[in-house]
Amino acid sequence: MSAHDAVSVIAAKRDGHALTDGQIDWVIDAFTSGAVADEQMSALAMAIVLRGMDRREIARWTAAMISSGVRMDFATLRRDGRPLRTVDKHSTGGVGDKITLPLAPLVASFGLAVPQLSGRGLGHTGGTLDKLESIAGWHADVSAAGMVTQLENVGAVVCAAGSGLAPADKKLYALRDVTATVESIPLIASSIMSKKIAEGTGALVLDVKVGSGAFMKSIDDARELAETMVALGADAGVRTVALLTDMSTPLGRTAGNAIEVEESVEVLAGGGPSDVVELTLALAREMLAAGGVDADPATHLADGRAMDSWRAMIAAQGGDPDAVLPRARHDETITAERGGIVAALDALGVGIAAWRLGAGRTRQGESVQHEAGVRWHVRPGDRVRRGDRLFTMATQTPERLDAAREALAGAVTIADAHDGVDELAQPLVIERVTVGS
Amino acid sequence: MSAHDAVSVIAAKRDGHALTDGQIDWVIDAFTSGAVADEQMSALAMAIVLRGMDRREIARWTAAMISSGVRMDFATLRRDGRPLRTVDKHSTGGVGDKITLPLAPLVASFGLAVPQLSGRGLGHTGGTLDKLESIAGWHADVSAAGMVTQLENVGAVVCAAGSGLAPADKKLYALRDVTATVESIPLIASSIMSKKIAEGTGALVLDVKVGSGAFMKSIDDARELAETMVALGADAGVRTVALLTDMSTPLGRTAGNAIEVEESVEVLAGGGPSDVVELTLALAREMLAAGGVDADPATHLADGRAMDSWRAMIAAQGGDPDAVLPRARHDETITAERGGIVAALDALGVGIAAWRLGAGRTRQGESVQHEAGVRWHVRPGDRVRRGDRLFTMATQTPERLDAAREALAGAVTIADAHDGVDELAQPLVIERVTVGS
Repeated sequence: MSAHDAVSVIAAKRDGHALTDGQIDWVIDAFTSGAVADEQMSALAMAIVLRGMDRREIARWTAAMISSGVRMDFATLRRDGRPLRTVDKHSTGGVGDKITLPLAPLVASFGLAVPQLSGRGLGHTGGTLDKLESIAGWHADVSAAGMVTQLENVGAVVCAAGSGLAPADKKLYALRDVTATVESIPLIASSIMSKKIAEGTGALVLDVKVGSGAFMKSIDDARELAETMVALGADAGVRTVALLTDMSTPLGRTAGNAIEVEESVEVLAGGGPSDVVELTLALAREMLAAGGVDADPATHLADGRAMDSWRAMIAAQGGDPDAVLPRARHDETITAERGGIVAALDALGVGIAAWRLGAGRTRQGESVQHEAGVRWHVRPGDRVRRGDRLFTMATQTPERLDAAREALAGAVTIADAHDGVDELAQPLVIERVTVGS
Repeated sequence: MSAHDAVSVIAAKRDGHALTDGQIDWVIDAFTSGAVADEQMSALAMAIVLRGMDRREIARWTAAMISSGVRMDFATLRRDGRPLRTVDKHSTGGVGDKITLPLAPLVASFGLAVPQLSGRGLGHTGGTLDKLESIAGWHADVSAAGMVTQLENVGAVVCAAGSGLAPADKKLYALRDVTATVESIPLIASSIMSKKIAEGTGALVLDVKVGSGAFMKSIDDARELAETMVALGADAGVRTVALLTDMSTPLGRTAGNAIEVEESVEVLAGGGPSDVVELTLALAREMLAAGGVDADPATHLADGRAMDSWRAMIAAQGGDPDAVLPRARHDETITAERGGIVAALDALGVGIAAWRLGAGRTRQGESVQHEAGVRWHVRPGDRVRRGDRLFTMATQTPERLDAAREALAGAVTIADAHDGVDELAQPLVIERVTVGS
């Protein structure tokens, strides 16, 4: 008979006690094997949502989830006979957040290895793999051996996580999704970090989003999440830094799949929207520093080396970098009903519209429309006249336009010129969080 | 598509909101049908444990659980052509609590109908059905039609609840048991009252136990539970009153199955331990008053009419009231290691010992030893000398004696004569709770 049982572990957390190391190890292991039932883990998850976990508990919980599966090891990567340093990036998810697409090849072009295990979208935030799959021939599945080869030859790989990494997290996440237990900083931090640490990266840069289009609506919550994850990285020997970045306004000019690839390619070609460029460079600087490279990443956007790296990365996974991206059969433009200055462009509303147009999914496993999405023609601070274009909606299924139009109706705020100027002052990168900061 | 979904109902309670009537009706119905999964209900249960429910929510939750199944109706009961009033009793469970056994036939002997749906024991508290099953031939299963016949002819029936009564409660209770969500006054009150109201009784007397051997350890919790249940009864049109009674010391002189039947028969014969007699009469007075009978219940213990009623009740369910009760093959007596005055006799320790000897079960569905149990020879306030008998343990399986002896070791506190006299002042019936009291 085990020294632990599910009811006493749940009751301890319910009553506000810290779980012991032994309790945490046991409950994660027993949940992974099925000895602790889903209904027991969901009761424990709710107790954690409402009672919290302290730093030791979160670290142990994360370690136990890593131990539930395999941990990758890229320490033996070599190029030209010399060790290759790995550095990874994770974003907590936002609207129009295509940053991984230009960032991974950009950083790889400086001689670092970027093993970027990514996910698919759910709800109003898009998924990196869904975006890349709009490139003809490109596939997300790469074996562990294939990752090593691609990292050594090309430097960047963006692929789906294998099922062997932190299976306890995968099982727990599916449960949290249906039991209203997602909203917990300890559970969010341990979920992200267990996957990232299991992935075997040497350094990690986190992009923690704050604002209406992000999971964290307040700067305080975002900072707490960032601090928790940075500490977990440090505890596990992974050099970790986090940037808190604004997600009240969507990133760039597009939200969708193919249209975000198009925008990313513009950035790699040295153009593209200034906010996407700014965030790509800010994260690249952190990744280069974490990987020990002293260089200005902007140079490789200007001289085409980031683009070369992108083309090699896409081709290595079967994609044709010269393929024409798919375009939607149906589109519709929304214009301004009054003139003034754009005081706000709500990321959540834009994200929901793109989702409703078919770019996102409601349930795991659903397919998405690569062609669907929203393009916005204005940004906060822009002056508009009545009749100016605000949004273009694109979809393969025109019956979706009504619902998307509804989501966009409240997404833009047009004020008289003198209003709302203060609100435009929010910088894109709000704060930097490091160990001990 | 339904107007409700499980995640938003759980999230509302998680965030400390009161659930709407519509949310409660929907979630209980969907849980009963399986549309709300066990893991979702257990997360909701934990949120309720930690966030509570207000009086309206509890009343609606109870009503929804009643509506999940059939509601019995005894309004048409007749004897000699005249309507028969029903009155029921429920105890929250204690050690040595055999009160139902003398009480039901005693109250029935005054011309009231007592439809007593009872349960089996789990853990350290015994079950009324387990006790009665130690009588040769007696069976707990009585059909609804059989209940009507027995109530009209005999007046008392103690039987197992059919599966059609409040099935949502049955399903929820099984879940709470394994997810550490039992400890919630709203959930306990609604569970008890949904079954009792569905049972169709016209009036209800509650025996809410307080103390070490009870589920409610503090008088404040017990009072809150009693007030909640009395209000639920009133809301449902069932005249309800509660007594808070002491369960720091076990009731009577025995805890087990056959040995508790033996003690109950002594009470019906006009003898028996004074505390069992006192509590039986206190509850009988409440039940008679609730049923509109103005009489002193003690008279029927003295004149044998309660005993006649008992014999008829046992015989009606196949039992032989003259059968010799089974006796354990193995017993062992524990004696005092020092002289003094008995300052405390811990109900929990005694209950655990009886359980370990085989009188109780660890999991639902296990069988129990009818012969097993504990007899105590002292009560708080008694003076003992070294070597005097304290306990006699009885079991069919002598390998259980060691664990039971261990549970009893700390169950009795012997003090010098001048100590602990104040503690003996606690009355058996502590408080009476009625609507508006």
